[in-house]
Amino acid sequence: MVRLRLDLGYDGTDFSGWARQPERRTVQGEIELALGKILRIEPPELTVAGRTDAGVHARGQVAHVDVTLEALSTLTRRTSASPDSSGEMGLGVDEWLSALLRRMAGVLGPDVRIYRVSVAPEGFDARFSALSRRYAYRVSDAPGGVDPLRRHEVIWHNRPLALDALNAAAVHLLGEHDFAAFCKKREGATTIRELQRLDWVREPSGILVATVVADAFCHSMVRALVGSLLAAGDGRRPVEWPGEVLSRAVRDSGVHVAPAHGLCLEEVTYPAPEHLATRAHSTRRLRTL
Amino acid sequence: MVRLRLDLGYDGTDFSGWARQPERRTVQGEIELALGKILRIEPPELTVAGRTDAGVHARGQVAHVDVTLEALSTLTRRTSASPDSSGEMGLGVDEWLSALLRRMAGVLGPDVRIYRVSVAPEGFDARFSALSRRYAYRVSDAPGGVDPLRRHEVIWHNRPLALDALNAAAVHLLGEHDFAAFCKKREGATTIRELQRLDWVREPSGILVATVVADAFCHSMVRALVGSLLAAGDGRRPVEWPGEVLSRAVRDSGVHVAPAHGLCLEEVTYPAPEHLATRAHSTRRLRTL
Repeated sequence: MVRLRLDLGYDGTDFSGWARQPERRTVQGEIELALGKILRIEPPELTVAGRTDAGVHARGQVAHVDVTLEALSTLTRRTSASPDSSGEMGLGVDEWLSALLRRMAGVLGPDVRIYRVSVAPEGFDARFSALSRRYAYRVSDAPGGVDPLRRHEVIWHNRPLALDALNAAAVHLLGEHDFAAFCKKREGATTIRELQRLDWVREPSGILVATVVADAFCHSMVRALVGSLLAAGDGRRPVEWPGEVLSRAVRDSGVHVAPAHGLCLEEVTYPAPEHLATRAHSTRRLRTL
Repeated sequence: MVRLRLDLGYDGTDFSGWARQPERRTVQGEIELALGKILRIEPPELTVAGRTDAGVHARGQVAHVDVTLEALSTLTRRTSASPDSSGEMGLGVDEWLSALLRRMAGVLGPDVRIYRVSVAPEGFDARFSALSRRYAYRVSDAPGGVDPLRRHEVIWHNRPLALDALNAAAVHLLGEHDFAAFCKKREGATTIRELQRLDWVREPSGILVATVVADAFCHSMVRALVGSLLAAGDGRRPVEWPGEVLSRAVRDSGVHVAPAHGLCLEEVTYPAPEHLATRAHSTRRLRTL
């Protein structure tokens, strides 16, 4: 068996999220089916860094999948135009992966793309080895509306937003906290997270972009954080309000979860290869405590 | 009557181009209908800077329309929540235009947005006063395919492109030439144009962007120029080839017109207000010679 790392992106608009569900079009489901079809095996199971919700996008998603070398090798024999005299190609894993990448581009719909397929280093686990996830949330407060070419990934906020208020409010959310106020409660799961970065910039286009980095996020956390900040940014709430909500550590009905389509998983970071297995081990232990 | 300047953008995917046609969804048709509906008048006729083809996008399109002050003023009376004691609002043109902008955002589909409505300066004509049009053409040569979130405005080129070859080839097309080799012939119309800028950059995302500026373009010219450059950029043709095609001044069947959806009208420039009428006059004279 060989473990493959897939780096990929998708437009979440027409997907019922990442996670495979019967009768629904999901990113996981589509990629697993494509791998099964191309490698002529039962669809293999993917493990992903960030299980995104319905409508959420990704540019820097990472997943892994375990396949046999035999399945990979048959792919190149079938797609090669000129086998050598023995009827076999003298090709290595790199050529197999390059062929797999091209085949995936042909089989998958244009709303999901695999950018890179590589052999994962020893100890790599797309989910448990990850050090941090970086998300972006994009908002336009232009009176006329959102640039039509970006409307699938930018929400329209129908009130002017003050960049300094957004950032002043965000500061109070940084660091390690119990984010219960911004999370959907799940039995037996901790809501303690370390928010490493949360800040806003206004791009030259006028679009406001929040960058949100944490070791991990609980369900709907980024969209709830953004929803609370938008209320501070347009003056409906004081800039201290998101911090106050956080400190109460209970869900607040005043926080509106921001729409899914403004959210995009931009990057997942991993430790150096020699620390992958240690990181995966400690993450698993933390999550099950 | 007052002449209004509209600054607007659209995703051309679901439009049969700019120009109004019976039974087709066009940008001009949709905006004219929206203006008629909002101002409660017969749909007024728009004049545009760049009549884009089916599938072509715009971020910096400019149009003008002539409407009566009376039609504008009724709009504010109807949309205002609190008329003053006389039953009339003591509002000026700025408030009417702001109300019009908000109404347009509500009536138009999300694939076309009006960014600004302003009273045009004396002598302004969206088409004939324009000094230059700037287009962008976007191409991805990534082996895995195009970022799904940008797939509506970026074409996929399934061969690696060399930035230096693209730019070396582009140099030979600059300046004033008869672009007959890259234009659809029209009886009685000149194909002489001044290509002021044509160069390529590779964005951090890896996407290649051509910037193309001319006083005006003839039909399908930008897409034919780009098609010839892509052949030089991926090595199918020598970098001198696009220049040779140009110098022959006849349509060349070896030039493949690049797909519409990579093209976007980014900006239209106009002279200072005092030169608007002179510019419109001289452009009209040139076009009819």
